[in-house]
Amino acid sequence: MKFAKIPMATITRLSVYMRTLQDLLEDDVDVISSERLARLCGVNPAQIRKDLAYFGEFGVRGVGYRVGDLLGQIKDILGLTRRWNLAMVGLGNLGSALVRHANFLKHGYTFTAAFDVDPQKVGKRLPNGLLINHVNEIEEVVKDRDVNVGIITTPASAAQSVANQLVLAGINGILNFAPVQIQVPDCCHVENVDFTISLDTIAYHLSVSG
Amino acid sequence: MKFAKIPMATITRLSVYMRTLQDLLEDDVDVISSERLARLCGVNPAQIRKDLAYFGEFGVRGVGYRVGDLLGQIKDILGLTRRWNLAMVGLGNLGSALVRHANFLKHGYTFTAAFDVDPQKVGKRLPNGLLINHVNEIEEVVKDRDVNVGIITTPASAAQSVANQLVLAGINGILNFAPVQIQVPDCCHVENVDFTISLDTIAYHLSVSG
Repeated sequence: MKFAKIPMATITRLSVYMRTLQDLLEDDVDVISSERLARLCGVNPAQIRKDLAYFGEFGVRGVGYRVGDLLGQIKDILGLTRRWNLAMVGLGNLGSALVRHANFLKHGYTFTAAFDVDPQKVGKRLPNGLLINHVNEIEEVVKDRDVNVGIITTPASAAQSVANQLVLAGINGILNFAPVQIQVPDCCHVENVDFTISLDTIAYHLSVSG
Repeated sequence: MKFAKIPMATITRLSVYMRTLQDLLEDDVDVISSERLARLCGVNPAQIRKDLAYFGEFGVRGVGYRVGDLLGQIKDILGLTRRWNLAMVGLGNLGSALVRHANFLKHGYTFTAAFDVDPQKVGKRLPNGLLINHVNEIEEVVKDRDVNVGIITTPASAAQSVANQLVLAGINGILNFAPVQIQVPDCCHVENVDFTISLDTIAYHLSVSG
């Protein structure tokens, strides 16, 4: 499916709706009103209707949304009906913690490759059995194991070089935890994660309200 | 300082500008054009001018921005000229990795408290010397150590109870890594961090372009 000009904030909110719908499905909820879904997602009902309207008509007037149907439709929109293979580059404290984090697998993301430069780590296996390869092997291993997305948790100084290797290996999606802006060709999509930016937002709110 | 109706996206971008300005200052750059600053931050120059215009006049026409001055002004806007004390609740793999992460201290955030329920952990000290207290002690320790922001990295099932305890202890800012929406009073500001939502955004981009 191709949709033009969808705001990024809409895509992010679809992910949030999807998580809430998954929880509802696990609790055997079949149908939910847009008001209640909105409250659970922390948005207003008009926002949900507006976000979904980009992609077609959803829900039944006077009834609400069928949980299983809407979940499937959002997964379809986001491209999450298939499996996504991840490579972790950088097995320090953060990278090691993330590889073990159950949240990835729960949402359909599977680590199929892991890389580091530390001779103490290369050649060893992670608790999940995954072999740690040297970053010099990125191109070969990424192609071999059909990796779709690279996650960078290296120090800032190594991030650009790793990003270059991932792009050379054909990777078009990077989740970057290194505290540096990495430059990639237009065909590659980068999402940056920096916890301290979220802390700055909290600090701002506490400062203006305190 | 109080500013009304500033878009959240502006606040987030100010954090990004601040990080770039810090790097420039470390590289002894005194003055930078809005074009070059924009390129380094991954936005367009009009965006920077618009974001800053909410807070006053910055920069010198035909010259650009004085790096040190603008950095100080943005820190002042965000409330980052003071020290912020953090409490980590949940010392599993992720919590332990985050407490050790140099990025917090670099940006003026100091962990002054840590909590868990595991008898194997409570009473022990983290590599930085911080004592791990039991979550039952949240109220006492938070007040004692002047904690401003709580970080939750517990399992989803424990997150709401921990949030309640933080709020009772007078905490008005929470960074939540647990994969669940927590409910707090209006006086408390919550920022949620979910890496898999960023992965969903990448998956969406790869799906629509692939």
